[in-house]
Amino acid sequence: MKTHLLLVASAAFLLTACASKQPAPAGKPASRSTGPSAEQIAAVSPGLARFTAQTIDAGLWNRPGLSRRDRSLITLSAQIARNQSTELGNQIAFALDNGVTPAEVSELITHLAFYASIGNAMSAVTAARSVFVNRNIGIEALPAAQGGLLALDEKSEASRAERVEANFGAVAPGVVQATTDVLFRDLWLRPGLSPRDRSLVTVSALIAVGQVAQVPVHLNKAMDNGLTEGEVSEALTQVAYYAGWPNVFSAMPVVKDVFSKRPA
Amino acid sequence: MKTHLLLVASAAFLLTACASKQPAPAGKPASRSTGPSAEQIAAVSPGLARFTAQTIDAGLWNRPGLSRRDRSLITLSAQIARNQSTELGNQIAFALDNGVTPAEVSELITHLAFYASIGNAMSAVTAARSVFVNRNIGIEALPAAQGGLLALDEKSEASRAERVEANFGAVAPGVVQATTDVLFRDLWLRPGLSPRDRSLVTVSALIAVGQVAQVPVHLNKAMDNGLTEGEVSEALTQVAYYAGWPNVFSAMPVVKDVFSKRPA
Amino acid sequence: MKTHLLLVASAAFLLTACASKQPAPAGKPASRSTGPSAEQIAAVSPGLARFTAQTIDAGLWNRPGLSRRDRSLITLSAQIARNQSTELGNQIAFALDNGVTPAEVSELITHLAFYASIGNAMSAVTAARSVFVNRNIGIEALPAAQGGLLALDEKSEASRAERVEANFGAVAPGVVQATTDVLFRDLWLRPGLSPRDRSLVTVSALIAVGQVAQVPVHLNKAMDNGLTEGEVSEALTQVAYYAGWPNVFSAMPVVKDVFSKRPA
Repeated sequence: MKTHLLLVASAAFLLTACASKQPAPAGKPASRSTGPSAEQIAAVSPGLARFTAQTIDAGLWNRPGLSRRDRSLITLSAQIARNQSTELGNQIAFALDNGVTPAEVSELITHLAFYASIGNAMSAVTAARSVFVNRNIGIEALPAAQGGLLALDEKSEASRAERVEANFGAVAPGVVQATTDVLFRDLWLRPGLSPRDRSLVTVSALIAVGQVAQVPVHLNKAMDNGLTEGEVSEALTQVAYYAGWPNVFSAMPVVKDVFSKRPA
Repeated sequence: MKTHLLLVASAAFLLTACASKQPAPAGKPASRSTGPSAEQIAAVSPGLARFTAQTIDAGLWNRPGLSRRDRSLITLSAQIARNQSTELGNQIAFALDNGVTPAEVSELITHLAFYASIGNAMSAVTAARSVFVNRNIGIEALPAAQGGLLALDEKSEASRAERVEANFGAVAPGVVQATTDVLFRDLWLRPGLSPRDRSLVTVSALIAVGQVAQVPVHLNKAMDNGLTEGEVSEALTQVAYYAGWPNVFSAMPVVKDVFSKRPA
Repeated sequence: MKTHLLLVASAAFLLTACASKQPAPAGKPASRSTGPSAEQIAAVSPGLARFTAQTIDAGLWNRPGLSRRDRSLITLSAQIARNQSTELGNQIAFALDNGVTPAEVSELITHLAFYASIGNAMSAVTAARSVFVNRNIGIEALPAAQGGLLALDEKSEASRAERVEANFGAVAPGVVQATTDVLFRDLWLRPGLSPRDRSLVTVSALIAVGQVAQVPVHLNKAMDNGLTEGEVSEALTQVAYYAGWPNVFSAMPVVKDVFSKRPA
């Protein structure tokens, strides 16, 4: 029986090791896509250890259609939106090993302070701070507090602001004002994350918590920002594992509808 | 670079300090609206440190239209409903500094045991117990276990019970019975929280987790209990930051509809 | 006042003790349905201590219509789906005392890795591992990593796969493929949890997070797998307490509709 456990655990470890194409920085242990070790998972569920090693680490993360770097952006977004604080430390380290820069991690957390709540961002701050300290990542690697904004698309922003004002200006003027001033004339223009990545983060966070009502606006914006149908499709596969099948099955009809209505 | 960090952090600290109108109890450090310190936030994201200090602490919490005490009721409800246990300790201390009484904190947690689940309430119990111990808040400050109930509006309760029985009496008699006996003939009549505050807590918790289907009934009840359109509108602004923009954008059409259908 | 507290706490303890029909294993303290002790709850809210002891421990858990073992399956599913990690350790120990086997706990976690996300499963792994170590539960008590699958109902699976392929094959081929290969030709056929229990876990998890869109398919499958109307009805009562009233009120119209459309 001990042998059984060791075999499962070793197989899991080998598969995980094989799955990792990018070596960890010299002198640091390889980061993993999850918190508990393969042995710890197998001590509760040998089946789950197998799925984690084979289906997720060796399978999902190596699928074509999306880089490991993009998969990490999606996974981080899903787990921060779901406030999965115990997994976040590992996931942030894994994202850095997969090519997400510290500046992008920093800005992704800033973005989700608005799209997943300040409380979710604060859990992520706590997790990220440990990783940054461990890896000697200092403030010089992070986006500035302010300034250097991207150019605003005045026409498209005017049309967005007009639509939201017409719908909700009388119901919640404070929300409408902050959406313009804080979100679309500040946050979305910060250069720390490309508009395409910012959109990918937003859409992933929405699907991850079942907020399908806001998907059409943000998925269209994401595709305007350069995300392709193929990438969206593969993002759904990634989110299925990291936010659960039901959230993806509820999002698929909405995604299908957005795809069908876009000009070819 | 160190200087850069210190400047951001100091600015954040000063802004936070300015934002706090009520002094903390003598001999205790001022409580804050979030867990990590301004320095800790800036070490992960200088931008987020700026937003937290300027947009939230100095901005949001000082907006007119809703007292800081009401903002704390809303924020606590959102964070308990979202089970953000790492932020809760700070938020409870901050609520007490903003004029929410220990009895109201206690009763808000009891209320959300039913509207956000017993598990969420237990995380809040753990967080509140530390704060109560630190501040020497004993059982004499808390609502009694039982008794002294507010008068029941028999007519309105009969109509509610009849509607729910007709809809769901055959599907889930256990739920229907407990809704009457435990919720509407006990919990809602407990004097530890005014009906208006209890409704504010309920509506905030619903919007904070995207449960819009239950908003119409509870928002109408809230406004029957004295919550004004202006207060609801401003509550949405508060919830946007503490539960994320998407939950508020999904709630606004429902709130708009409730507003439009109420007698002028 | 101290007396007041002691009375509430003692009453709570006595009621909890009475509620527990199954003795804990000799030499181990009785497990409880929640983390904080009755005294700790009463120190924050005497009212909540009363509701926990009388309404939940002595009331809910002893209602007819569903065994304590089934109530534990439902409660565990709800709390894992909601990622309530601080309550999970107690809930897992309580489930074992209520007759859920270690193999079933293990397999329930494996199942929810897909229906609630791998991150939620990892929090559960951490909680379960402590309980398993404390109770000397080794790998020989757990379902195997692989093999010994139940027979597949080829006709019903072909019809499911065809429907999903037609709907979403072009939108998210990766999701559709994994749904067939990983979920329906592997996970659902694992013998560690009976199909009826697996369905109960799935439906409980869906309702617990407000994912009503996926309830019709899975509730029909659950009833095909032997779950009765009476059991579903009583499961709603259990979920009301462990996932909050709003999630159950949003699920009831969907459950009612499924009931009404099934052949008598």
